[in-house]
Amino acid sequence: MSGPETALHAVDPRTGERLEPGYEAAGPQDVDGACELAWQAFGTYRRTGLKARAAFLDTIADRIEALGDVLVERVVAETGIPRARVEGERARTCNQLRLFAQVVRSGDWLGARIDPALPERTPLPRPDLRRRQVPLGPVAVFGASNFPLAFSVAGGDTASALAAGAPVVVKAHPAHPGTSELVGRAVREAVQEHGLPEGTFSLLHGAGHEIGTRLVTHPRIAAVGFTGSRRGGLALVAAAAARPVPIPVYAEMSSVNPVFLLPGALRDGGADLGRAFVASLSIGAGQLCTSPGLVFLVGDGSDAFIEAASAAVAAAPPAPMLTAGIRTAYDAGTARLAGTDGVRTLARGLDDPEIASPCVAGLFLTDDATFLAHSFLQDEVFGASSLLVRVADADRLAEIIGSLEGQLTATVHAAPGDHALAGELLPALETLAGRVLFNGWPTGVEVGDAIVHGGPFPATSAPATTSVGTSAIERFLRPVSYQNVPDGLLPEELRDGDPLGVPRRVDGKPV
Amino acid sequence: MSGPETALHAVDPRTGERLEPGYEAAGPQDVDGACELAWQAFGTYRRTGLKARAAFLDTIADRIEALGDVLVERVVAETGIPRARVEGERARTCNQLRLFAQVVRSGDWLGARIDPALPERTPLPRPDLRRRQVPLGPVAVFGASNFPLAFSVAGGDTASALAAGAPVVVKAHPAHPGTSELVGRAVREAVQEHGLPEGTFSLLHGAGHEIGTRLVTHPRIAAVGFTGSRRGGLALVAAAAARPVPIPVYAEMSSVNPVFLLPGALRDGGADLGRAFVASLSIGAGQLCTSPGLVFLVGDGSDAFIEAASAAVAAAPPAPMLTAGIRTAYDAGTARLAGTDGVRTLARGLDDPEIASPCVAGLFLTDDATFLAHSFLQDEVFGASSLLVRVADADRLAEIIGSLEGQLTATVHAAPGDHALAGELLPALETLAGRVLFNGWPTGVEVGDAIVHGGPFPATSAPATTSVGTSAIERFLRPVSYQNVPDGLLPEELRDGDPLGVPRRVDGKPV
Repeated sequence: MSGPETALHAVDPRTGERLEPGYEAAGPQDVDGACELAWQAFGTYRRTGLKARAAFLDTIADRIEALGDVLVERVVAETGIPRARVEGERARTCNQLRLFAQVVRSGDWLGARIDPALPERTPLPRPDLRRRQVPLGPVAVFGASNFPLAFSVAGGDTASALAAGAPVVVKAHPAHPGTSELVGRAVREAVQEHGLPEGTFSLLHGAGHEIGTRLVTHPRIAAVGFTGSRRGGLALVAAAAARPVPIPVYAEMSSVNPVFLLPGALRDGGADLGRAFVASLSIGAGQLCTSPGLVFLVGDGSDAFIEAASAAVAAAPPAPMLTAGIRTAYDAGTARLAGTDGVRTLARGLDDPEIASPCVAGLFLTDDATFLAHSFLQDEVFGASSLLVRVADADRLAEIIGSLEGQLTATVHAAPGDHALAGELLPALETLAGRVLFNGWPTGVEVGDAIVHGGPFPATSAPATTSVGTSAIERFLRPVSYQNVPDGLLPEELRDGDPLGVPRRVDGKPV
Repeated sequence: MSGPETALHAVDPRTGERLEPGYEAAGPQDVDGACELAWQAFGTYRRTGLKARAAFLDTIADRIEALGDVLVERVVAETGIPRARVEGERARTCNQLRLFAQVVRSGDWLGARIDPALPERTPLPRPDLRRRQVPLGPVAVFGASNFPLAFSVAGGDTASALAAGAPVVVKAHPAHPGTSELVGRAVREAVQEHGLPEGTFSLLHGAGHEIGTRLVTHPRIAAVGFTGSRRGGLALVAAAAARPVPIPVYAEMSSVNPVFLLPGALRDGGADLGRAFVASLSIGAGQLCTSPGLVFLVGDGSDAFIEAASAAVAAAPPAPMLTAGIRTAYDAGTARLAGTDGVRTLARGLDDPEIASPCVAGLFLTDDATFLAHSFLQDEVFGASSLLVRVADADRLAEIIGSLEGQLTATVHAAPGDHALAGELLPALETLAGRVLFNGWPTGVEVGDAIVHGGPFPATSAPATTSVGTSAIERFLRPVSYQNVPDGLLPEELRDGDPLGVPRRVDGKPV
């Protein structure tokens, strides 16, 4: 906290009111200090035992819960997200930390492999080779605006990096500095409670791009986690690639999450599907990475869907958007859709002059030819806006799928009679997206072992990864092989007799 | 084959003689054609069953062996590599193809995971989530000059990409077009024998950068495998990053493979170590990615090592280098070392005026202060040149390790009395390199399950990967999650009852 000159204030998006206190924006020397501290901590933190590291993650979750209502109220004030959703997100965040504690304890992420020496092998003996995963180094994490807990200071990127043994420097999202500070304090308390080096975790505030760029280009930073806009993500990717030593950036950026309604599904459930679609679109005022922004209606039986969805959007109450800037971008995006020849505005949601930055839902309709003619029609409009596209037939649908950019999700609604067509589409859909859903809606991302929250560019900058679920830890690890290293010098998980009792592969087979 | 205008000819590096026949260099339209064919093949090839795909890889190995002496003789003529080493490399190449056939059959690479639905879970039911790995898409492979079989047309990159279900377009190294053509023909025959689409594999010749850049920037290409120089690798990385849709480049580029001789090891085995070191340095005229180009002698007991190594280098017979260009670069690199203040030339190997492009071995000595003062002293000199560095003590050694660039390997020679020091160094060495060896030499890379042939930048452009061993397949895969997809539409490996019998994780546990 500091004087008004350098202080960063949140704004309540419901009222437009500036919130106290202010938080001091980090300067270049703060960035450098945090990165050097993280590097110093790396040597110690990466060697914490599995149980100790897991207990640390559990303590972070405990400390976040112990913040109680103070945290929930601050999130509501800074983001306008309804209290019940904030409580749900807090539960998700703490469950996620505890899931990574379990991941750490399991030791599975170490990927321990042993190929014992074969001294008698001809023509050449085989050396003793043992392999495990080690952390890349300190990780920079950028908090997202739309999940102030689950994708922010102690969200999935931080949890998975800490699980990997990587210290974390978080750049807080400027829209929720108070929330960030509360959660950051909880993490710092856990660091102290477990006797870990101070640099295991640092939190920086800042509103401009300068601090973020300095963080990503600092020589002590080894990887970056980011959730946000395509422009922001690509700027970080470019900065990281231009370093003397380039580093990976795991940026989850933009996705319109196409939904494909096949003829049988439309016939059997048109009106119900229309209402369920708008329910999914309305969650969080559409400010979710997985919001269904593009819906393809195949065949000529889509009237009931269109009618029900239009009625639901017309009755949709406005919700505050996260920031005034996001609202401005949303209004520009919907205006562009509304002003495009061949695109019809089906419905707009309710407005409320009492809300400072309201999201007025929008539903638009076009045809396949118009959609194929304008690539900007597949651009993300962040918020509760969606474009319906009437598609003549399966051939046209295949053409459209081939024209789409990479996505986090692709959703199919199919009645049993649609399964032949759905089966034909599946290979293209799995090439397009990280998650393929049937007869559901893409919002709601399960945090588990089999989830993929990722996908081909521009959904992410690293299509082989996921930012949600147990595999998220893999982003911050690299393999090292040890050849003929004496047993007493090997990492414990690779020693004879498996003293840590972790899963290992010997000669390529699990033991 | 074509007329002399556009034909590409190999040169016998032993004699400088131009070899017949010429091979037609690909034009832009040939690149585009190969990439479009690869994309067309992708839809079919990625869906080949595990057994069929494995059999295809086995057949490639069979066909390469069936080329017999014609292949061996052509490799010798185009590269100057001695016959025995060529035969060894051929065996390694075929073993590698068969290893990947085993990998494919095992189904482990599919990473199948199932989190069954929990309809009764509160507050929200869990959907059915199933996950597997799918291939990224067609892969461009650049053949290396120094392993004309094992890292070339049907080498590790091609074998692992084909194993992943990715069609491959190879850009042959211009130094061995005849070898490339023979092996390429073997692969094409295997494609035909197994009834696979033509575009599953294509081979392009070309000497300039233009063809390679066009290949990497072609929209149908989804990933790149490369082994070669740092300059070449970084150019491909930059081209791939500048695409509208950036793609990963797995470039294995440059490494000097530091060796650390600790005081006890030097005392116990100085002279023997000196001779063993030069034996490792001399393999392939030092033209190996893992050649020991930098040796740190810790403490003051290094005279015996230096004396024996100098004598061995002075007696080292010259071997032809792969190309005249490589020889020119080698001579420039050794001249630069010899001309640096504080660097002493200990020995040069024998020359032979009969060889067109001989590698005259070089051994140089400097001290820790000089080494730390000139970062170029850690630049790779590709060939049988190595720089010895006297290091005063353990503190100075730690400083030096902190100054080194990323490496493929780091080697420690330690007597039992050195183990305390070695244990302190290990965390820094595993941060530095992809493979850490004790009491051996870095040349010789085992192709197995626990190997890592990779490492931090600039050793590679993707430190979390390996280009050798079973894990090399992971570079060409990405995960996809299937949510509530009807059993009959799921990929077989994810269906109820595990009809393919592949390893799977259910609720995070192997079954």
